[in-house]
Amino acid sequence: MDLNSDLAESFGRWELGDDDALLDIVTSANVACGYHAGDATVIRRACARAATNGVAVGAQVAYRDLPGFGRRFIDVAPAELTNDIVYQIGALAGLAAITGTRVSYVKPHGALYNAIVTHTEQAAAVVEAVGEYDDRLAVLGLPGSEWLRLAERAGLRVHREAFADRAYTPEGTLVPRRESGAVLHDPDAIAERCARIAAGDPIEAVDGSPLTVQADSICVHGDSPGAVRIAETVRDRLRGQGIRLRPFAGEG
Amino acid sequence: MDLNSDLAESFGRWELGDDDALLDIVTSANVACGYHAGDATVIRRACARAATNGVAVGAQVAYRDLPGFGRRFIDVAPAELTNDIVYQIGALAGLAAITGTRVSYVKPHGALYNAIVTHTEQAAAVVEAVGEYDDRLAVLGLPGSEWLRLAERAGLRVHREAFADRAYTPEGTLVPRRESGAVLHDPDAIAERCARIAAGDPIEAVDGSPLTVQADSICVHGDSPGAVRIAETVRDRLRGQGIRLRPFAGEG
Amino acid sequence: MDLNSDLAESFGRWELGDDDALLDIVTSANVACGYHAGDATVIRRACARAATNGVAVGAQVAYRDLPGFGRRFIDVAPAELTNDIVYQIGALAGLAAITGTRVSYVKPHGALYNAIVTHTEQAAAVVEAVGEYDDRLAVLGLPGSEWLRLAERAGLRVHREAFADRAYTPEGTLVPRRESGAVLHDPDAIAERCARIAAGDPIEAVDGSPLTVQADSICVHGDSPGAVRIAETVRDRLRGQGIRLRPFAGEG
Amino acid sequence: MDLNSDLAESFGRWELGDDDALLDIVTSANVACGYHAGDATVIRRACARAATNGVAVGAQVAYRDLPGFGRRFIDVAPAELTNDIVYQIGALAGLAAITGTRVSYVKPHGALYNAIVTHTEQAAAVVEAVGEYDDRLAVLGLPGSEWLRLAERAGLRVHREAFADRAYTPEGTLVPRRESGAVLHDPDAIAERCARIAAGDPIEAVDGSPLTVQADSICVHGDSPGAVRIAETVRDRLRGQGIRLRPFAGEG
Repeated sequence: MDLNSDLAESFGRWELGDDDALLDIVTSANVACGYHAGDATVIRRACARAATNGVAVGAQVAYRDLPGFGRRFIDVAPAELTNDIVYQIGALAGLAAITGTRVSYVKPHGALYNAIVTHTEQAAAVVEAVGEYDDRLAVLGLPGSEWLRLAERAGLRVHREAFADRAYTPEGTLVPRRESGAVLHDPDAIAERCARIAAGDPIEAVDGSPLTVQADSICVHGDSPGAVRIAETVRDRLRGQGIRLRPFAGEG
Repeated sequence: MDLNSDLAESFGRWELGDDDALLDIVTSANVACGYHAGDATVIRRACARAATNGVAVGAQVAYRDLPGFGRRFIDVAPAELTNDIVYQIGALAGLAAITGTRVSYVKPHGALYNAIVTHTEQAAAVVEAVGEYDDRLAVLGLPGSEWLRLAERAGLRVHREAFADRAYTPEGTLVPRRESGAVLHDPDAIAERCARIAAGDPIEAVDGSPLTVQADSICVHGDSPGAVRIAETVRDRLRGQGIRLRPFAGEG
Repeated sequence: MDLNSDLAESFGRWELGDDDALLDIVTSANVACGYHAGDATVIRRACARAATNGVAVGAQVAYRDLPGFGRRFIDVAPAELTNDIVYQIGALAGLAAITGTRVSYVKPHGALYNAIVTHTEQAAAVVEAVGEYDDRLAVLGLPGSEWLRLAERAGLRVHREAFADRAYTPEGTLVPRRESGAVLHDPDAIAERCARIAAGDPIEAVDGSPLTVQADSICVHGDSPGAVRIAETVRDRLRGQGIRLRPFAGEG
Repeated sequence: MDLNSDLAESFGRWELGDDDALLDIVTSANVACGYHAGDATVIRRACARAATNGVAVGAQVAYRDLPGFGRRFIDVAPAELTNDIVYQIGALAGLAAITGTRVSYVKPHGALYNAIVTHTEQAAAVVEAVGEYDDRLAVLGLPGSEWLRLAERAGLRVHREAFADRAYTPEGTLVPRRESGAVLHDPDAIAERCARIAAGDPIEAVDGSPLTVQADSICVHGDSPGAVRIAETVRDRLRGQGIRLRPFAGEG
């Protein structure tokens, strides 16, 4: 099993998340590429530590929207989106290379991640970018999304992720954040769920029904002290259960 | 001899320069990397045409300053400047690769170009970036600059450029733009000077004294219809004189 | 009748449109506020000439999107949009004041303009901003839009605009740009249409049926030499017909 | 005596400083204007609370440099700097007005603050902006700076500030941050110094010699929990000594 987390999301004077702590826990680092967060210095530091720790580096590509942290849908033309994605992967690749690692996979961020669950044109634009840049890159996303469907059709290596701290509907989609119970907070309950997912056992959907979530990676967060503790608890639980944690996309 | 020009300096809705015309004339394209100008779509288009035409692609790296077009000195810390340069080269490299070419050299832009003629710390920061990214990249700059001096000391391949339309002092430096006579406008006079430089013959400095300018490349501009005509005149004159025009840094 | 045009849409090194020419023709200037285009120096220059010429200044508010020139829908939260609009009006107001004029009206730009034809929440957010900032400001927009409907309900002074060079459907909406015949190019035909609109006479819709377009202002463009000539032709035709051109929102 | 602090320096997703806590302590709020930090929503919230608490609002104007947080000198042309300052004051003024307050003074930020201690052209450009915008605005700055000297000559109301937690040289300038002992950390020692400054008594310069610092306002910081505690300690000490705290520039 793999644990992934969003990293390098500071920007200039503004710090966000505890990159160092997370890079001691996760096996895959979704490194921001400067469009929603991350400047060159923050990105480099995250890449350097990922390289040291054998954490795989992924390009956390996004809409160009620093003021909105990439969390607002932007109706960008697909051809421009493709070019924006290549720009971001390349920028990250340069900083990864000089720190002794490389970009192994691509995981879209925020509003782009959400949009390409269903937005076929933008999903195709991101797939196009990955295929053009390097079709040996893996892609990470939500099972059932247009993004993964089109990536698979394009011959890319497709990996599915589960969310450690999010409630699922009986159909296997995420309960929207605005609904009560959408986000789990108890570290032990979260770790228990992750252990079941890793073992292929069903978890409980939000209505209590059993749900089997297939995942190659579990996403944990790190932007609060509590989040770091949850990530540690998940890692320790999986390890305690004899599950080997390693990058889904190969080491960095 | 090589002819180089600044390209991909449009941004979104704003068009600047006639990239297509210039890419039919020059042998080296200083492609903007998004920090002072150039979005991913503009950069890609320039790279694609450069690839088709066998024009070498260089990274025209700059301060992060879209509002100032990279023309204002910014007192950025050297370590951050290094990372900013790597980010830019990498971003361009991605778009160059998908269009069938690659980054062959680095030429700083605007205020950064001017600063590192004398600013040792920033010059060293840019040299550091190039060396870390790929020490086989060539660098292009002003003869006598800190930039070229430090690049040479670092073992980089160093190339000197002359300016087709700028007056020179007897010492071989450029007459500042604000002084009268600093910029030449007559295409034939400019072409004549370029021919002399290419042949190794002395040109006339601003005070009339003879001056030998050693150059591996001549910089021409393309951001006005008149400028494109000058570039054509220079090219035709050099060719007419039997001088072969080809990229100083190898083809793209 | 009033003629309005988009102005101050240059940015730093990038020039767009012939502000000086347009400010000798139109009676209302939709001045960009820095979110999609326009830096403080460009804005100031446009305000100064508007003040001299008695041209009314309007705030051409937009999404925060320089790379996309405000032409891409952004799903910004309404409360944030309200604050962004107030920020833009205030910024323009400062530069208008020091040049001897003031902001008289608000006209949204690009994708925001299009969105709030139907997007009730964003339309309400812009109306809220205008009401909070100064409810004596006039608003300009498309007849039948949510923007004007909600502005009217909020007690704002509402003004309708027609487009000089756009084809209309029989229902009075604009023919989408991507359809053939959507944009008119013949200056005399355009001027004739404007004269009919100004006189209250029906024009021909795209299917040939008569259509009465009610408008307090006609929008002309100025971002090409041809566009400036069209604007002049429209102005001369209206004047020749004895129609007085003056700002719908009072002089600057 | 007045206590001032930098506020509204968050940006989008990135939070910085505890505005709410500071606005319960200080009497003057240097509100960021969007050029180095601060988006419209953050600015509005700070203004609203300042209005409620009777805290005066000042425009914390800066270079246009979000990636550098306004901490890097930029060699911007004076005429453009003037316009940039007017833009920022106006933007803040709009948000201040809708929350029931107004801009009372101007205090430059970061690298601009430091530059105009000695950079006459840029100092004059900022003075020009204030005078053009509203010559009844007060200005706040370092005693002996070009900024205050030129502001005074221009007839602006000039106020001097002291720094609660910075060591002074015997000449009354600040000990540079890079030198040891430049920043004080002990709340009681800092409060004691502030009390002496407020009473007109000499403090100890870094070499132990007595130094009288004349100040109309004392700057406290709030970007860490420790900083908030220091600010509270200073306020309580001054109050305990019977010193009335109130805005130097009149209430908001």
